[in-house]
Amino acid sequence: MYRIIHTDGRAKRGELVTVHGTIQTPVFMNVGTVAAIKGAVSSVDLAGIGTQVELCNTYHLHVRPGDEIVHEMGGLSKFMHWDRPILTDSGGFQVFSLAKLRKIKEEGVSFQSHVDGRHIFMGPEESMRIQSNLASTIAMAFDECPPSTAEKEYIRKSVERTTRWLVRCKAEMERLNSLPETINKEQMLFGINQGGIYEDIRIEHAKQIAELDLPGYAVGGLAVGESHEEMYRILDAVVPYLPKANPVYLMGVGTPANILEAVSRGVDFFDCVYPTRNGRHGHAYTKSGRLNLKNERYKTDDRPIEEGCDCPACRNHSRAYIRHLLVAGEMLGLRLMVLHNLRFYNRMMEEIREAIEQDRFEEYKKETLEGFARGQDA
Amino acid sequence: MYRIIHTDGRAKRGELVTVHGTIQTPVFMNVGTVAAIKGAVSSVDLAGIGTQVELCNTYHLHVRPGDEIVHEMGGLSKFMHWDRPILTDSGGFQVFSLAKLRKIKEEGVSFQSHVDGRHIFMGPEESMRIQSNLASTIAMAFDECPPSTAEKEYIRKSVERTTRWLVRCKAEMERLNSLPETINKEQMLFGINQGGIYEDIRIEHAKQIAELDLPGYAVGGLAVGESHEEMYRILDAVVPYLPKANPVYLMGVGTPANILEAVSRGVDFFDCVYPTRNGRHGHAYTKSGRLNLKNERYKTDDRPIEEGCDCPACRNHSRAYIRHLLVAGEMLGLRLMVLHNLRFYNRMMEEIREAIEQDRFEEYKKETLEGFARGQDA
Repeated sequence: MYRIIHTDGRAKRGELVTVHGTIQTPVFMNVGTVAAIKGAVSSVDLAGIGTQVELCNTYHLHVRPGDEIVHEMGGLSKFMHWDRPILTDSGGFQVFSLAKLRKIKEEGVSFQSHVDGRHIFMGPEESMRIQSNLASTIAMAFDECPPSTAEKEYIRKSVERTTRWLVRCKAEMERLNSLPETINKEQMLFGINQGGIYEDIRIEHAKQIAELDLPGYAVGGLAVGESHEEMYRILDAVVPYLPKANPVYLMGVGTPANILEAVSRGVDFFDCVYPTRNGRHGHAYTKSGRLNLKNERYKTDDRPIEEGCDCPACRNHSRAYIRHLLVAGEMLGLRLMVLHNLRFYNRMMEEIREAIEQDRFEEYKKETLEGFARGQDA
Repeated sequence: MYRIIHTDGRAKRGELVTVHGTIQTPVFMNVGTVAAIKGAVSSVDLAGIGTQVELCNTYHLHVRPGDEIVHEMGGLSKFMHWDRPILTDSGGFQVFSLAKLRKIKEEGVSFQSHVDGRHIFMGPEESMRIQSNLASTIAMAFDECPPSTAEKEYIRKSVERTTRWLVRCKAEMERLNSLPETINKEQMLFGINQGGIYEDIRIEHAKQIAELDLPGYAVGGLAVGESHEEMYRILDAVVPYLPKANPVYLMGVGTPANILEAVSRGVDFFDCVYPTRNGRHGHAYTKSGRLNLKNERYKTDDRPIEEGCDCPACRNHSRAYIRHLLVAGEMLGLRLMVLHNLRFYNRMMEEIREAIEQDRFEEYKKETLEGFARGQDA
């Protein structure tokens, strides 16, 4: 269960007790799409860089290796050797962004797998069953993610269906949690607020889903093309309508600056592929902005990526060595970059939690944003 | 300096004292071509799986990042954060196998870089200067590696030139070791015996290079297409003519069975890309033969790759999980395979050393070869 330990403005320092341990919030979840972090980072490595929650993708795991295989292997915790909390998304976002030949009906969505082209049907019940097989700590509701360019009228109809789907998700999750073969019988369901960039639809939807008394609520469908200002405006509008007694999760967000802004608007949970994806492209996060490690200027730079960082890359290796690995196309370069970037995000969350506890979050946020703006590669 | 601690038949249990620590022999060196092991394995990881010596490739490092950069960064030990011994090859093998538009003269070889096509000249002096910049513990002599299909008369002439080159290597290394800017002033030079599959040329060459009083001698030009039996025949013939007071290094060899056979013929040092390359292709070494982890049969196999193995893959992960990672193309799968295979080789060498000390090497070799032959994927 969730409790708020301290507040500082709208920023909240909380904790969510789960069957796999207590999550200290605000938290950044590390994305391990197919039960592994891109960049050869294992669950054992994650524990070493302070990761609290690993996020896995339901759609990917359903397609490969198959959620029934994962169930047979004892669930995701055992399969990937990770005994801390796991959040699985619902598959909805991937169905709407990756899969081909999609057809949406009231029952759910038919589509073709992006891996082998086979026909798959997924609705609220199927998503819950897959996530129950995966045995994650937190399951996400199956929702429609309409494109940010969709007409307001389409968004309104889509959100109404998403609400009906949420009711079905909740019923199916309760049924699954009572079955003897279910691995995690205390699996939590988080609902998802949708409504595009329309404050009125967002607020109306928030009120409706709040009535379902779920252990957590997410804000979905942001960071999909709208501006940062629009995202902040939506958060300002909708977060106050989500239940105070539950954590708020801003899905797929974002840059370190986005996270600071969202924390100050009351958000508790985050996830994003930026630290892994940018790391693999040679971009390192630091308190004074991003470094492009492939840059010629780092050729003989014997400093770590970031002074004072305790990640395995910074403890042991120089910018010059990591640059060499990246230029030579050695996997080790990608691994070190990803470890650094995830540690950077995890460490920023630790600092955010401390700053809230000490009633100096706005000061911390201001200083940190100024640091990012100073720029790097200098 | 090298000393023999114990012998068991022709198998030797020895140690080589170097400026970077003492190497217990027989030893298998782990190949980190461009100052990194393929498969996202760092020098920190290597220390954890009992690696004694990391081998780096002179040609690759000369091309990228450049040996002068490595020298500026304090040498390979500092550059790749590895404080144990390092052996660099001479670049010769790569010049003769990778580079384009090669021209051999008495002075050395002109060729084009396989990376950027630029013209490079490398002779004995250049190879020694590059290796001195890299500051490895052991430098290898610059030799010609003629194709295994070459005529006997060509091999004879080539070997005579290789001897003249070795004299020049020794003189240049002595000069470099006396310069103030040299990082490792105690860099050792190992000579290389050549002669293809001709015992008479091999023996004659061994006698000539033995006179140069070098700290170690390698047998080169094997495992390049001849049969295993031919390789063992050459070892039987030539090893007795190499100085007893120095270690013998069989370059680029080989399978676990090759290593067992060569140890019983008096070889001390080995290196090979098999554990890394085969690992990246999904093949795992075990005491009962090789496993193809991509095989369907491992889909729900919750055993480690090898029972009793203490590598990071076997300690934490199942065959089913590693198979999933390999099939999904996740780098983590490759990393875990490479860690297992290197640990397998390193552990086998530990067992070989113990068996020699206990005068039961032939028994250990027989049992181990029988285990490999039993086969796996079962």
